[in-house]
Amino acid sequence: MTETMETTRSVVVERDFPYPPEKLWRALTQPHLIAEWLMNNDFVPVAGRRFTLSADWGQVDCEVETVEEHRALSYCWDTKDLRSIVTWTLAPTAAGTSLRMEQRGFTTAQKSYFQGASVGWPRFFDQLGNVVSKLD
Amino acid sequence: MTETMETTRSVVVERDFPYPPEKLWRALTQPHLIAEWLMNNDFVPVAGRRFTLSADWGQVDCEVETVEEHRALSYCWDTKDLRSIVTWTLAPTAAGTSLRMEQRGFTTAQKSYFQGASVGWPRFFDQLGNVVSKLD
Repeated sequence: MTETMETTRSVVVERDFPYPPEKLWRALTQPHLIAEWLMNNDFVPVAGRRFTLSADWGQVDCEVETVEEHRALSYCWDTKDLRSIVTWTLAPTAAGTSLRMEQRGFTTAQKSYFQGASVGWPRFFDQLGNVVSKLD
Repeated sequence: MTETMETTRSVVVERDFPYPPEKLWRALTQPHLIAEWLMNNDFVPVAGRRFTLSADWGQVDCEVETVEEHRALSYCWDTKDLRSIVTWTLAPTAAGTSLRMEQRGFTTAQKSYFQGASVGWPRFFDQLGNVVSKLD
């Protein structure tokens, strides 16, 4: 056994929201709304398009991987030495939408990134909920 | 918005192993092998069957949820005030098997459980790899 068997970890955050998938989709894909809950950005919901998320502490280099309107969205999320993928899944429920975010690609050595994501994503979900609650 | 919108987190660990799914499946489902990499147990791979994982620090109360031989296995994993579900997925690859474990159900308040699982599962994967490497 000489091969490298790298272990990767993912952070998953899930929450049920009392809004239809279409409404959450707007907050996940419209740049001015993304800016309100996540970071400043030049996002375009088209597979293959690169975009940047920027914050005080630096920036995240992203590229859209998949776009399934109102259902799923994924993009790579690279910053410094982190190479990760963020995947959003929206599933309709009786009361609204079950929203799931998975960020995968943390090596076991990347503890501080993993820890930061574990703490940060629930806060982004809070902010996302605030943004969506104000949409018509 | 009066409903409780609880956020849950999951820990996911993934690793490619140079063994076929059948071999990993044995280590995931045979009690004497599970004891070598995880904990002492009375596991039976039958949906609906309860079992217990026991360690120095206490025990985990489990119940098998799904069993798809060589492909997927899930069981609930309850300990103290944690109510979680562990799901194993085995996907064949050219070189062996991609093994994925997701433990879901950590509330945002259950930080120490989440942190413990984040650190503990990669170690269990290491031990699992050692066990499987010795199988015929």
